[in-house]
Amino acid sequence: MEFHVYDTTLRDGAQQEGLNLSVADKLTIARHLDGLGVGFIEGGWPGANPKDTEFFRRAVDELDLKHARLAAFGSTRRAGVRAADDPQVAALRDSGASVVTLVAKSHDRHVELALRTTLEENLAMIRDTVSHLREEGQQVFLDAEHFFDGYRANRDYAMEVLRTAYEAGAEVVALCDTNGGMLPSWVADVVHDVREHTQGAVGIHCHNDTGCAVANSLAAVDAGAMHVQGCINGYGERTGNADLVSVVANLQLKLGREVLPTGLLGEATRVAHAVAEVTNVPPAGRQPYVGASAFTHKAGLHASAIKVDPNLYQHMDPAGVGNDMRLLVSDMAGRASIELKGRELGYDLSDDRDLVTRVTDRVKALEEQGYTFEAADASFELLLIEEVEGVRPSFFDVESWRVISEARGGGQGAASATEAIVKIHADGVRHVETGEGNGPVNALDQALRAAITRAFPVVADFDLIDFKVRIFDQGHGTDAKTRVLIETSDGTTSWTTVGVGSNVIEASWEALVDGLTFGLRRHVGETTSRTAAVVE
Amino acid sequence: MEFHVYDTTLRDGAQQEGLNLSVADKLTIARHLDGLGVGFIEGGWPGANPKDTEFFRRAVDELDLKHARLAAFGSTRRAGVRAADDPQVAALRDSGASVVTLVAKSHDRHVELALRTTLEENLAMIRDTVSHLREEGQQVFLDAEHFFDGYRANRDYAMEVLRTAYEAGAEVVALCDTNGGMLPSWVADVVHDVREHTQGAVGIHCHNDTGCAVANSLAAVDAGAMHVQGCINGYGERTGNADLVSVVANLQLKLGREVLPTGLLGEATRVAHAVAEVTNVPPAGRQPYVGASAFTHKAGLHASAIKVDPNLYQHMDPAGVGNDMRLLVSDMAGRASIELKGRELGYDLSDDRDLVTRVTDRVKALEEQGYTFEAADASFELLLIEEVEGVRPSFFDVESWRVISEARGGGQGAASATEAIVKIHADGVRHVETGEGNGPVNALDQALRAAITRAFPVVADFDLIDFKVRIFDQGHGTDAKTRVLIETSDGTTSWTTVGVGSNVIEASWEALVDGLTFGLRRHVGETTSRTAAVVE
Repeated sequence: MEFHVYDTTLRDGAQQEGLNLSVADKLTIARHLDGLGVGFIEGGWPGANPKDTEFFRRAVDELDLKHARLAAFGSTRRAGVRAADDPQVAALRDSGASVVTLVAKSHDRHVELALRTTLEENLAMIRDTVSHLREEGQQVFLDAEHFFDGYRANRDYAMEVLRTAYEAGAEVVALCDTNGGMLPSWVADVVHDVREHTQGAVGIHCHNDTGCAVANSLAAVDAGAMHVQGCINGYGERTGNADLVSVVANLQLKLGREVLPTGLLGEATRVAHAVAEVTNVPPAGRQPYVGASAFTHKAGLHASAIKVDPNLYQHMDPAGVGNDMRLLVSDMAGRASIELKGRELGYDLSDDRDLVTRVTDRVKALEEQGYTFEAADASFELLLIEEVEGVRPSFFDVESWRVISEARGGGQGAASATEAIVKIHADGVRHVETGEGNGPVNALDQALRAAITRAFPVVADFDLIDFKVRIFDQGHGTDAKTRVLIETSDGTTSWTTVGVGSNVIEASWEALVDGLTFGLRRHVGETTSRTAAVVE
Repeated sequence: MEFHVYDTTLRDGAQQEGLNLSVADKLTIARHLDGLGVGFIEGGWPGANPKDTEFFRRAVDELDLKHARLAAFGSTRRAGVRAADDPQVAALRDSGASVVTLVAKSHDRHVELALRTTLEENLAMIRDTVSHLREEGQQVFLDAEHFFDGYRANRDYAMEVLRTAYEAGAEVVALCDTNGGMLPSWVADVVHDVREHTQGAVGIHCHNDTGCAVANSLAAVDAGAMHVQGCINGYGERTGNADLVSVVANLQLKLGREVLPTGLLGEATRVAHAVAEVTNVPPAGRQPYVGASAFTHKAGLHASAIKVDPNLYQHMDPAGVGNDMRLLVSDMAGRASIELKGRELGYDLSDDRDLVTRVTDRVKALEEQGYTFEAADASFELLLIEEVEGVRPSFFDVESWRVISEARGGGQGAASATEAIVKIHADGVRHVETGEGNGPVNALDQALRAAITRAFPVVADFDLIDFKVRIFDQGHGTDAKTRVLIETSDGTTSWTTVGVGSNVIEASWEALVDGLTFGLRRHVGETTSRTAAVVE
């Protein structure tokens, strides 16, 4: 049998705290997963949940999957009814998915306490449901829930569950560490025992409660499992499911097993981040392989060695998973990083020791105040230009700004409005503009861009595409500070700027001004001569 | 030898992207780590970095460690000088720490390309520095950097590094997977080989680049390592170091090895979160053992089983690591969770099916709009009370509010100010108050509390202690929305409320009003009779 990469983001992953997917979200994620080349996408539980029923209905029409096949998840028939008479089973049969993954109890205590039926009836439920679906032409996988705990409590019964499923026609039985308490050596021992005493393909489904979900999955594959379940970005209830990208990357890049179609692992970073956009769960920077920090270097020690050979300090070429090496500007990094960063931005600083010192000192001083240049490349570049050219790029002077936000009444019926007034001088002309917006930053952005567009029409093409607020306490009795990161786009590329202040609006203003200044320097500098006069 | 739990949060952990620790931060974290009972706290690199030098100077006076001993980290002597003449080595010797951990190259290529010296000189640097420090009365550990990669490239040389260190008097040599590319079975094989061919205690230092840092650490301990390094919360460069709490919890709770002083593992959740407060890196909800979600249940399937027996769905008693089981109110959870949550809050809903349906429906509808009740218990409780009692608790009516934020001038010299005007009616009296603050939310909070305090003096004791902003895009072309979570304290307990809107100020206002209302219901309801009149 071919190895199965089985994604359960849309079902088990969706049980993560804070995650809430619409049908449209699920369809989008399914397309991304297909782009990564997974073999199976578990879409949800049709019949149990109207959203999931609709997902399968729409998926059949709207998804044009190139690599993946859809799996419908659901439980074995209820106790005491025929499988053919159970509407739940019918919903699985009729979902349009090409595989049905049945979840079945394999831990004796769960059968008795949670399912409230007899051990014998549970086996009959498995036998009947698998056989019925097979007779109806379905391919059937079985998730043996709580298998590892069940195996410890009553090995004979847990094994009997597997045999029953295989005999009834289940193509794969996935052993589930549902409560996530296993360690790799334990998983390996159990999978070996299962392989020795049953006949059929074994799958593995791990949770990360011991921090070992990836290693547990690999241990199972090493012991002969041919089907591995997981979720993109390690989503899932409690500590999450096994991170499918880490499992697959380890299998391919570390163990030489090609489990995805050729070349598609290089999509991993893009897909992981695109899915995070949909789920709106901020991606974990430290995530193995695909995290923004996964190939990022900060320590000065490392940065100087990286100047010699990047491979000295990375375990693989980040391009293999579509990621990049990054160097951070930080007070720990020291001069070597500033030099490298300058080179990345097109400035050779190696001959000017004083300049590097000045830049390093300013970065340190600003980081003390709460600024961060790790994410705000454009703000760092403005600072660098200021030190290189002796003057900060500037296309307009600010006279004043004001934001008024107000509401009448309380509760749901309250009527609110926000407006901003911005007064600036550009090219010798005073511009006063008012902006209305959903919130203070939106209103300020509207007003500021309206004012600047008069002098620099290119600004009309700029767009504020992301806005992040971080409130942090200095932790030593001083007031809380706000850091704002703003991403501005010109339609083709985007850049990020930072602002810091005790006021979210003030911090946003700083980042907005820098965002427009950076864009103007890039665009106006390239296309008209007017810039030169302004900049110089 | 006794097993070493060796924390390197203050040194290797501090290399994480976005993490920036002051000396005061480091001292605070050291106290927390001592409270967890770790054996060693690596404080930094005295002599290389003024902050770290100051840390050791102050640590000797200010830290009163009960369990941990301080380790000073630094490199072997420079090539071509005597160890006794190297000021770097002197700084290590004189730091006041009770252990020196020397980092040494063990990968031949790194010696030649990064260190730019000969393989022989590198061995001499190790021999001399260890011997010198031993002669000066120091206990010495050695970190064999890039050991696993070095072992693969040139096993003989890597082994020679270990032998040299042991012979010179290093008590432990920690094998470092510096680039983090190892898998558990590989680590086990190498540690076995090292134990067979060298004489001395072996330590392990893992990074999480394959998602296996915890499993790799356990594999090394299983193969005989007696010293394990890691960082609290898995901090560290790139994907982070091994999460020390996960490693220790697995050793103690899963493998029965008592590596911390009795009872202190129960401090793990508190310590992990307290350190996250200091580092200001938001704690990962999914973190094994100590994450806010680690014992949190959302799925309706699970919630109904949990009503029967909580241990059916958790791999251990969360109290063992000082964590708690939580149930989430969510549209996936369904009725069973709402019932359980009600019970947690002191309402028996089991007899009123209609009520449960109404609450479930409202939660679903509000979650669609972007609200989340998973973190905002107080907002959920207000909603529940509203459905139980038929009317939402309210102690005042809002007439209007207005916020004005303005600045004159641009750049660093800009002068800005924010004020808020709030008009409310409480107890039949109209109150108009102005608040000034650092930012719009602060100003609104000042004005609102000033107005309410007139009617309810207890509000003077309330404090806004945390304020989180999340901007999320519905992802389907609609405008971005803002969700605000506000934590209010009465000095003894705290509670969290949620507000949602397209405007950060509007969303904050909603959460502020709910936060004060919740506190008033708790306090005024208990202490005066005036409330009753207002609530009814």
